[in-house]
Amino acid sequence: VGRAFAELIRRERGWILAERGVHLVISGITTGRFGSITDPGGIDVAAALDRARRGRPHGTAVEASRFAVACPADIIVETMPLEPFHGTHAAAVIRAALTAGRYVVSANKGPVAHACAELSRLAAERGVTYRYESAVADGMPVFNLIRSALPAADITGMHGVLNSTSTVVLEALARGEAMDAAIRNAQRLGIAESDPSYDLEGWDAAVKLAALSATVWSTPLDIHRVTREPVDAGTAARAAEAAVRGQRLVSLASAERIGDGTVQASVRMVELSADDDFYSLAGASLGLRITSRLLCPITISSDNPTPRDTAYGLLADILAPTEIRPATRGD
Amino acid sequence: VGRAFAELIRRERGWILAERGVHLVISGITTGRFGSITDPGGIDVAAALDRARRGRPHGTAVEASRFAVACPADIIVETMPLEPFHGTHAAAVIRAALTAGRYVVSANKGPVAHACAELSRLAAERGVTYRYESAVADGMPVFNLIRSALPAADITGMHGVLNSTSTVVLEALARGEAMDAAIRNAQRLGIAESDPSYDLEGWDAAVKLAALSATVWSTPLDIHRVTREPVDAGTAARAAEAAVRGQRLVSLASAERIGDGTVQASVRMVELSADDDFYSLAGASLGLRITSRLLCPITISSDNPTPRDTAYGLLADILAPTEIRPATRGD
Repeated sequence: VGRAFAELIRRERGWILAERGVHLVISGITTGRFGSITDPGGIDVAAALDRARRGRPHGTAVEASRFAVACPADIIVETMPLEPFHGTHAAAVIRAALTAGRYVVSANKGPVAHACAELSRLAAERGVTYRYESAVADGMPVFNLIRSALPAADITGMHGVLNSTSTVVLEALARGEAMDAAIRNAQRLGIAESDPSYDLEGWDAAVKLAALSATVWSTPLDIHRVTREPVDAGTAARAAEAAVRGQRLVSLASAERIGDGTVQASVRMVELSADDDFYSLAGASLGLRITSRLLCPITISSDNPTPRDTAYGLLADILAPTEIRPATRGD
Repeated sequence: VGRAFAELIRRERGWILAERGVHLVISGITTGRFGSITDPGGIDVAAALDRARRGRPHGTAVEASRFAVACPADIIVETMPLEPFHGTHAAAVIRAALTAGRYVVSANKGPVAHACAELSRLAAERGVTYRYESAVADGMPVFNLIRSALPAADITGMHGVLNSTSTVVLEALARGEAMDAAIRNAQRLGIAESDPSYDLEGWDAAVKLAALSATVWSTPLDIHRVTREPVDAGTAARAAEAAVRGQRLVSLASAERIGDGTVQASVRMVELSADDDFYSLAGASLGLRITSRLLCPITISSDNPTPRDTAYGLLADILAPTEIRPATRGD
């Protein structure tokens, strides 16, 4: 995602300046494997991408939190690896950046799920913003939609197809493939991880629900208390059987606010007919249905997103109507 | 829509104040039939709604443009009847309100289609905003989505099911009903107008495409140059035939930016299979698919909206993150 973002900015910076009047300069990059570089005037992104592709380190390694403070930038774009069960390392980097008065744009659901309230409060105190459009749905604009378009809908529930590995494996099972072959196929497509259990056991969707709940209801979810129904050998027969009847079995992630303000969440297998709005979501496509007290149900979906779309979500966070005021040039 | 909005504010003002810290007061109402009332301290909305229900006029009639300037309000909410082929009367009222430094929230697609650039420029000059979320899709958040979430996607096309009368009539035709019966049924449901030709001939969708094109591409569309395929007797056989094959015939509104910056638009019959993302849109449901250069296709849809949802769109425009600064109280 970091590379896709750097590539996006390199390719589109002229267009962004012409179209939006915003001059974007990548003034530093740090990675776990390739070290760090900074240049207040703008680094040579093409050269940096080329070095990374050839496995050549950039420079000396700098601890990420220190980099987030030292790098001469208005905005820190954070795309660190996910730590699903706590998100503490990424949260520490984001905290350091916000404390130093930097705007933060993050593609990381861990810190949203586990520390959203604290980080958002810190951002407000410092007069900056903490945005994370890409954290849950690869650039599908869920958070910007909720913030700008549903500011007073009083959201009561969110139901989504949020894990593409589960969808792609279930599609293969529905065609009669064996579990092993289905997983290998999803890995070949670049969709499943080498260890797909995090996705197939529903942890990924549970963390996404936690990020949504923390944002929409200011209610953190204990992901260990999310009811999870895994995609496993037992599911295979159900998926194939549903297909015979013209139905589709999908892994549906649901969070609902119940009477007393608590949130109930689950990741479970649901059979869809052609009349259901998620029936047409195939492959890596994602969707979220938002129910609310004051507005009819609204559904948003994205058609086969890739890391390029996650990178777009980072750019959207940077350019969304907000008060990102450059601080290093000017005051 | 005006009544649904007044009712929404009356019912939810306490919740909006508690939840969003915004104190909304309806300080005036003017209507074509029932005259005008104003009260800087807030009018009795329940009593006004009751008078309107019983057909009792409020007070003296005031010309709407004059009312928009004289009414003691920060925000003018405009829900005048549509004048599809020009929108000049509503545009004059909006122009007067903006000139007087009032924020304008409008549910009217005519002025957007025909005068969007001029009115938006005027709003910017006066330091206010002109918002119209409900103008095209009954509260389905298309404009707030585009503005906040797709700020740099470089939108290349928009395809939507935007006219519910066409959908409901086509559904009845698909079931084998005659054209007359299909129209009467849609009228009974409160979906079709007493003269449904404006909807069934594609004018409504064409004006909506013009509003989208003016907003997204700053390119006004001559609605007389939008290719339109009507829902008529000739369509009936196709709709029924599609149903036999498990397909659905829908009226699809499309606008595409072509190479040289011009926009091509059409409203035409399209057959959908269960794999299409609009296949599940039944009844009054609306949907819009947005294709762009930098982001994968994004689809948004609303499930059977009513005037209550149009009213919500007006409220969303008032509460969307913006810089609506009360001017009459304070500076």
